[in-house]
Amino acid sequence: MVEKVYGIGVGPGDKDLLTVKAVNILNSVDTIFVPISKEGRSSVAYDIIKDVLNEDKKENIVELLFPMSKDIDYLKKYWNDAFNTIKEANGEVALITIGDPTLYSTFSYVWSSLKENNISVEIINGIPSPFASAGRLNIPLVEGDENIAILPQGKDLEKYLGVFDTIVVMKTKSLGEKLKKLVDEEHKNDYIVGIVSKACCENEEIQMGKIDEINFDEVNEYLSLAVIKKIK
Amino acid sequence: MVEKVYGIGVGPGDKDLLTVKAVNILNSVDTIFVPISKEGRSSVAYDIIKDVLNEDKKENIVELLFPMSKDIDYLKKYWNDAFNTIKEANGEVALITIGDPTLYSTFSYVWSSLKENNISVEIINGIPSPFASAGRLNIPLVEGDENIAILPQGKDLEKYLGVFDTIVVMKTKSLGEKLKKLVDEEHKNDYIVGIVSKACCENEEIQMGKIDEINFDEVNEYLSLAVIKKIK
Repeated sequence: MVEKVYGIGVGPGDKDLLTVKAVNILNSVDTIFVPISKEGRSSVAYDIIKDVLNEDKKENIVELLFPMSKDIDYLKKYWNDAFNTIKEANGEVALITIGDPTLYSTFSYVWSSLKENNISVEIINGIPSPFASAGRLNIPLVEGDENIAILPQGKDLEKYLGVFDTIVVMKTKSLGEKLKKLVDEEHKNDYIVGIVSKACCENEEIQMGKIDEINFDEVNEYLSLAVIKKIK
Repeated sequence: MVEKVYGIGVGPGDKDLLTVKAVNILNSVDTIFVPISKEGRSSVAYDIIKDVLNEDKKENIVELLFPMSKDIDYLKKYWNDAFNTIKEANGEVALITIGDPTLYSTFSYVWSSLKENNISVEIINGIPSPFASAGRLNIPLVEGDENIAILPQGKDLEKYLGVFDTIVVMKTKSLGEKLKKLVDEEHKNDYIVGIVSKACCENEEIQMGKIDEINFDEVNEYLSLAVIKKIK
């Protein structure tokens, strides 16, 4: 049975944004589990780490299938399979996840099963995507006594827009329509919106401006998020 | 005049949680500015990086004084002095900040002045403290469609407790009193509270449990934060 599982965040996409600790542990574990979303498709997380691995470590990669779906019962079968594969591994292993393991991560699909089975877990944080995106936008997320809300897929945006100093919307699908419905003519200049797709990757795309200045049709929705700040 | 300013996050306290990029840039810049809160006091941020610097780089350290105060007019004088010192430096420089530069950081005190003066800024993210703390608590901050709010000093906690799936309170002063006032007998088991002081440092302190199980008198308030999760 596995001795220890490291949940390692590999950050937004640039291998140099890995922590020193992540690089060291990736090169010390017996097996590295990498998530894929479909058989035969390459792993985004693995692409980030592959160039920091020693040659002999590249033989210790095992893919775990985490399909994209909204059907939780269907997904749970895969989460359980992944847990069983990890449990049966030998020695110390790592499961890598893009961004940070504590923020909407693939690691959370096996985390509670590992703990319930008293398997030792250690989290190695990675740079979370909202922070990488704010860095690339060259703006602070929050300063002083400002507050911030992070909303998945813009859920409850109507409740919190204008209430929080900063809102991060994870996944920007339909965000343009939502914002144009929520914000009337009088208030459309009250916000600055930054949209980042694939922060820190080679094919990063960035837009920043008032609501009317953003071309929402051109936003690449894959690995994208929005930072919405109230102008003071 | 300075050519470029890197705002470098040095993470929560463990030098191995620096990113590879941060280590490389710290060893390439002409000057490293380190924040201190009082003349003669050592810099927490510098203590994190000192062992990753090449010997010759240790001569290029310049302290900047950012006193602790709530008097913004008094502080602005120091922020302006810091900006002027940075502006007059030669070549490429770095200003280091604990945690991440985009989240309540020392870097934000000079950031807007740098931009207004068209000085090139590049942000190198660090691991933000809420994420390091959740990692040490061995719990996800958010998963699935959960939302999260980050509140400085627990401002507006009464509005958002029970509303957000997860709340992070930066600085835990008076948090015990606030929680006991806000949560009645019937609901006191509805939350799990994790309190972390100096996450990932040698003298890290952790408590986790229901509200009644936390000994708030023993919480070290320096560099501390709370993660409050609704139990489902």
